[in-house]
Amino acid sequence: MTKPLRVGIAGLGTVGAGLVRILTEESAVFAARCGRPVAISAVSARDPKKPRGIALPARFEPNPVALADAEDVDVVVEVMGGAGDPAHALVKRALELGKPVVTANKALLSRHGMELARLAEEKRAALNFEAAVAGGIPIIKAIREALVANRVGRLYGILNGTCNFVLTEMTKSGRAFTDVLKEAQERGYAEADPTFDIGGLDAAHKLSLLAALAFGIQIDLPGIHVEGIETVTSEDIQFADELGYRIKLLGIARATDRGIEQRVHPTMVPADSAIARIEGVTNAVVIEGAPVGNLAFEGPGAGAGATASAVAADIADIARGSFNLPFIVPVAQLKSRQAPPIARHMGMSYVRLRVRDRAGVMAAITAVLAKHEVSIESLLQHGRAPGEAVSIVMTMHECPEATMRAALAEIGALDSVLAPPNFIRIESFT
Amino acid sequence: MTKPLRVGIAGLGTVGAGLVRILTEESAVFAARCGRPVAISAVSARDPKKPRGIALPARFEPNPVALADAEDVDVVVEVMGGAGDPAHALVKRALELGKPVVTANKALLSRHGMELARLAEEKRAALNFEAAVAGGIPIIKAIREALVANRVGRLYGILNGTCNFVLTEMTKSGRAFTDVLKEAQERGYAEADPTFDIGGLDAAHKLSLLAALAFGIQIDLPGIHVEGIETVTSEDIQFADELGYRIKLLGIARATDRGIEQRVHPTMVPADSAIARIEGVTNAVVIEGAPVGNLAFEGPGAGAGATASAVAADIADIARGSFNLPFIVPVAQLKSRQAPPIARHMGMSYVRLRVRDRAGVMAAITAVLAKHEVSIESLLQHGRAPGEAVSIVMTMHECPEATMRAALAEIGALDSVLAPPNFIRIESFT
Repeated sequence: MTKPLRVGIAGLGTVGAGLVRILTEESAVFAARCGRPVAISAVSARDPKKPRGIALPARFEPNPVALADAEDVDVVVEVMGGAGDPAHALVKRALELGKPVVTANKALLSRHGMELARLAEEKRAALNFEAAVAGGIPIIKAIREALVANRVGRLYGILNGTCNFVLTEMTKSGRAFTDVLKEAQERGYAEADPTFDIGGLDAAHKLSLLAALAFGIQIDLPGIHVEGIETVTSEDIQFADELGYRIKLLGIARATDRGIEQRVHPTMVPADSAIARIEGVTNAVVIEGAPVGNLAFEGPGAGAGATASAVAADIADIARGSFNLPFIVPVAQLKSRQAPPIARHMGMSYVRLRVRDRAGVMAAITAVLAKHEVSIESLLQHGRAPGEAVSIVMTMHECPEATMRAALAEIGALDSVLAPPNFIRIESFT
Repeated sequence: MTKPLRVGIAGLGTVGAGLVRILTEESAVFAARCGRPVAISAVSARDPKKPRGIALPARFEPNPVALADAEDVDVVVEVMGGAGDPAHALVKRALELGKPVVTANKALLSRHGMELARLAEEKRAALNFEAAVAGGIPIIKAIREALVANRVGRLYGILNGTCNFVLTEMTKSGRAFTDVLKEAQERGYAEADPTFDIGGLDAAHKLSLLAALAFGIQIDLPGIHVEGIETVTSEDIQFADELGYRIKLLGIARATDRGIEQRVHPTMVPADSAIARIEGVTNAVVIEGAPVGNLAFEGPGAGAGATASAVAADIADIARGSFNLPFIVPVAQLKSRQAPPIARHMGMSYVRLRVRDRAGVMAAITAVLAKHEVSIESLLQHGRAPGEAVSIVMTMHECPEATMRAALAEIGALDSVLAPPNFIRIESFT
């Protein structure tokens, strides 16, 4: 067996500790499969003494960036997180020195991915980031390697386990958003400050990487339209069910004649679709490619074991001598096509209105829709006593989002409409 | 850009023609993603003049085995099929010469895989076979590369689209097996002689490869217990539905304290499990690994586009210079553990009995079960007039299959039992 591959690990949180466990407890099996031993030569963390259920497996390096320069480190593993320094400085320095890097850091890559990929390419050093998207699901490898003979038409996924847990619980129990979010926090599925997950930004980070890989475009985080799940009510979920839909936070990237759409938002999906059935903290990604057809991948999107499994696989690729460009083609060949603004999105939609139930309400609403040439697909209204507030729910046939929004602005201004309309996009799968 | 990788294709059936289409119509995109052009330098087929919707893209070579020796062929692609020659001779010769091979041939590999893998290892030549299992699903790459840090506890899948189509249609329409099979043949989902698919052997070939990869064991086709779907009746499907199950032909490989079980048979799975929802010709594989958790992969298991996509990805890996041992570790390190005989299987089961409805029948049956210490989980009997033939259905708690079979032999011999008991294994997922 050849000489060991020496790994320096920056970050000993959940993922780092999970990786240490694999590399120490399963070292013989892992070495056999990699064709050479993989040894941890140095680790770095904020506090060397923090209890983490593992002993420090190697030399402790107080300055994470120093791992890049360390002579006993062949591969830098960055599992600290954070879009800025020290993660950025560490990864950049390692690549500048031609050292391969494995990172789980989606925030770093969605901000600095192009710069770092260019460096990796120039130095022919691996920049592997399987763990940055969808945890244990090997979705980066699938797009980067297994689907290279395909053109992707659409890619969509449940990329944030916290949101999916909250929406699943709301659907199952009928409970309100804030109530379920509190439970998610208590169970450790949501952070104390959950806005990053709930607001959709975490999913957007991941989508930006998947879209770049699948469509051969530059990472464009600011180009992604992002909405979170805060506005989804239990009433919407109940109406969705009546209409044959489930509500999911989806990240969607799609080739259209207006460019590559990229968006993260609560989405109604047909209840009998594969993606509708993904429950709890599980993640899933569906890729519609030609000529392959539709492929679906499901698995744990987070957690020590799943994420460490992905990091270890990235290390194994390096140990076996495999090298792939971070984004398949050289960065200079990635297209810089701007994502079209969400106003240009074409799609079906769901609208919930809170109105005073009196004569002429429906006529006024439908007149506005007719004026804007928005066509109603279905309409639900549960009977109440005249004069009371009542919910009207409509699904609309495909139309430009700008048109829909103009119509909703007018409808919202009607006298008998009591609250701003609630609007949720419907995604269809044929 | 570096010099082209020159591919020789043996076999211009559905898959071969699909591959030619990718390599000619998408050559620029494919070259950019591979980092070098990929050119077809020679092709071989039984009849060069057969209409296949594509022009012959290169020099025609009447003798497929000659592709191995051809100076203008860097990679041999074997998509002829067949476990014997010429496929075997071609792949063997190419590897002997140190030429990388891509094959979609599960029959060849499940018979000669160990010999060929040993050759590939000795010559450090790739032997890639993504298309041999589950068509467009990158399941070989997932196990060979993405899950190397895991221990697999169980792997199961729908590996034959024909069987899944037939069972899905039987479930949806209530029609009988022979009737649906005829439709499958008319729609091109089943061969004129369907025994290879329907009898489970095709799924067994695929399972033998997945099990070797996932458990680090030698390929052991004869060790796989194989039953087909011919014995599944529409009555079984209806009872399964009442009991909350679906019937699927599963390939299952599982680590037990008796060894690595490998089996292909009609299986009752909980109706709300992910695998139960896979319909039609779609394939799916679920891997239960530690530490990753459960991963599910779904997609088209056959067809020109899906299979050619997988073959092309294998070629891309070679073009990019990636090399992995065919079965992850050297063949000498694969364990030769014999699969335990099916009699030692422990599991739940479903039994359907055709009995004459008269006093004492149930007492006689349950007495036999009690004697063998088989414990009934649930029992269904739909009322008929006394004296008429009636079906009794029972599900049994987990017990050794030998015990179950002994009990069924006795039950089948009872006077009032009119036909041999129908027995279907239940697989549970927790």
